[in-house]
Amino acid sequence: MTDPGAAETPIGVVDLARARANASKVVAYAEEHGLAWRPHVKTHKSLRVARLQLDAGARGLTVATLHEAEVMASLTDDLLLAYPPVGEAKLARLAALPERLDFKVALDSTEVTEPLAAAAVAAGRTVGVLVEQDVGLGRVGVQSAEEVVALARRVDEIEGVDFRGILFYPGHIRMPSDAQRPHLTEVADRVDRTIEALGEAGLPPEIVSGGSTPTLWHSHEIPGLTEIRSGSCIYYDREALAVGVGAPDALAYTVLATVVSTAVPGRAVVDAGSKALAKESRGGDDGYGVLLDRPEVRVVGLSEEHGVLDLGETRWVPRIGERVRIVPNHVCVSVNLQERLLAMDGEERFLMELEGRGR
Amino acid sequence: MTDPGAAETPIGVVDLARARANASKVVAYAEEHGLAWRPHVKTHKSLRVARLQLDAGARGLTVATLHEAEVMASLTDDLLLAYPPVGEAKLARLAALPERLDFKVALDSTEVTEPLAAAAVAAGRTVGVLVEQDVGLGRVGVQSAEEVVALARRVDEIEGVDFRGILFYPGHIRMPSDAQRPHLTEVADRVDRTIEALGEAGLPPEIVSGGSTPTLWHSHEIPGLTEIRSGSCIYYDREALAVGVGAPDALAYTVLATVVSTAVPGRAVVDAGSKALAKESRGGDDGYGVLLDRPEVRVVGLSEEHGVLDLGETRWVPRIGERVRIVPNHVCVSVNLQERLLAMDGEERFLMELEGRGR
Repeated sequence: MTDPGAAETPIGVVDLARARANASKVVAYAEEHGLAWRPHVKTHKSLRVARLQLDAGARGLTVATLHEAEVMASLTDDLLLAYPPVGEAKLARLAALPERLDFKVALDSTEVTEPLAAAAVAAGRTVGVLVEQDVGLGRVGVQSAEEVVALARRVDEIEGVDFRGILFYPGHIRMPSDAQRPHLTEVADRVDRTIEALGEAGLPPEIVSGGSTPTLWHSHEIPGLTEIRSGSCIYYDREALAVGVGAPDALAYTVLATVVSTAVPGRAVVDAGSKALAKESRGGDDGYGVLLDRPEVRVVGLSEEHGVLDLGETRWVPRIGERVRIVPNHVCVSVNLQERLLAMDGEERFLMELEGRGR
Repeated sequence: MTDPGAAETPIGVVDLARARANASKVVAYAEEHGLAWRPHVKTHKSLRVARLQLDAGARGLTVATLHEAEVMASLTDDLLLAYPPVGEAKLARLAALPERLDFKVALDSTEVTEPLAAAAVAAGRTVGVLVEQDVGLGRVGVQSAEEVVALARRVDEIEGVDFRGILFYPGHIRMPSDAQRPHLTEVADRVDRTIEALGEAGLPPEIVSGGSTPTLWHSHEIPGLTEIRSGSCIYYDREALAVGVGAPDALAYTVLATVVSTAVPGRAVVDAGSKALAKESRGGDDGYGVLLDRPEVRVVGLSEEHGVLDLGETRWVPRIGERVRIVPNHVCVSVNLQERLLAMDGEERFLMELEGRGR
């Protein structure tokens, strides 16, 4: 990555040329396998980056919140809310979205479907529904093909909602390790059974939406898949590099920080703490991030405004005022902590707003 | 706590009556022991809550960032930046703070002191300095009484800065367990030696600033202490309740969330994820928070917009749309994730801005 220059720290830094290359690579992979890419904007929360994804060939956008939907509706007619909208306030916001939208919602219960349908009818519109199936993560999603069919039937019966297909999120799989392959095979089998059961019920899914970033390049191994939603493949992060889904030269996001203390032997402290990086562990005592240019230096401690670097494995002797770039464990939560980002695009440097941030 | 009403979720909820009672209790304790309370505003980032603390008898405010300083300067003339200001941009902002301020900075090196002094001289002002000593946390702070004296001498010699005393943060101690007592004794001994050495050097400290929230009610056991900075004692959190420094009826902050899925057996999912609670572990697999009214229900998983509740130890059967209040592990980072808070003050309900948030 090129030099971010003299911005005040801490600040998230994005390399838009790399983001563009990352988007093109996903679109090329998707096209090769007859898939669509409907990227999740939760990673970047930026109109500029969403536009870059659509320009590269993304087919619509995925959002997690009504605010993201409201913001991203200015860029595309094709939005998927991959989150169940619950409560009057959310349904009122949903009903007020531009009418031109082909708006789809993922959900896993009649308790979410029925008020959604009622709100859609009241607004004189129809909302597409993808029935979410749990494929092993154990977070949300109905548990079996039979339950998918039952919920799809209910959606098909009532006014205001339109059954469009299924959605799943294989967030429990960390590819491409071979040890993870049986999990992928199991996901493929479950999805296959569900598609078959829906066909038998006379409700063949138009959309089969899947694809996490770790499993990204294996998406074509899921028979019947029509689209992938992978979001963090636009920037990648330490986790993505660790599981091998992104190469170091694809990394498009870091946090720029300044060394502020070297008083404790064997350590240095930078001004990016948990309020800039997010204190998300990858398990064990592996720390919260790593220096971009010195991967032997890990962030081993985080307070709110302090990042503690372990100097035990480096010959680097940091000076107060020296700047470093940190690769965070999880890019999406670090971006969400920034007010705005420092964007680099070739020689250009500018502050980039995060319009989709907030509620 | 009283009922927060029908706000859109997820949102942080503050009980201002409890915050006021918490502030009064700290001030009463401080006065009883001849200490000042200079609360750290990083916990709440709110002008209203800072005013409440000053009204209760707090002596000035502690801040972590220049933005917090700029915002809080409207409320008091007495500010402590408990963080080394490094870099031209930070020093320019510091120099532009209102001249009427008695502004103090904590630092631990000549490399921070000298540019700070130069910036102060250029602005025609003097900045107070507290030399920070490491008392066992191993984060920042010079290592010995001798190093404190050496840095205090340097501060005393040069123009633009004024040696005012010392600062320490015993963040490694989780009182009031008796097993932690030897650590407190060691801190007291270190501080005592430093005060003595400074006295012998002809630089007796006017300010001896200490006091984390876990050690709050033991602050008077540190001889020579003049002030405590404890910030999270205004709201408390799951960690504070676990170490016993706050009682359940002192808890003034929760995150209001809505149940959005019950599709996975033994679990329920709420709409407060890591972007509302922060995924900060307390160690082990203890989870990321607990329900206020059902402490047997823990948040065992967090994705960005999903909080996964473990129902294994409860007879509660959550319904879609039901609202819960979650006690997060660490209040400060959860508050920082909110755009604004829902404040409750007796029967009043209003949205409260977080003016100190951001950079």
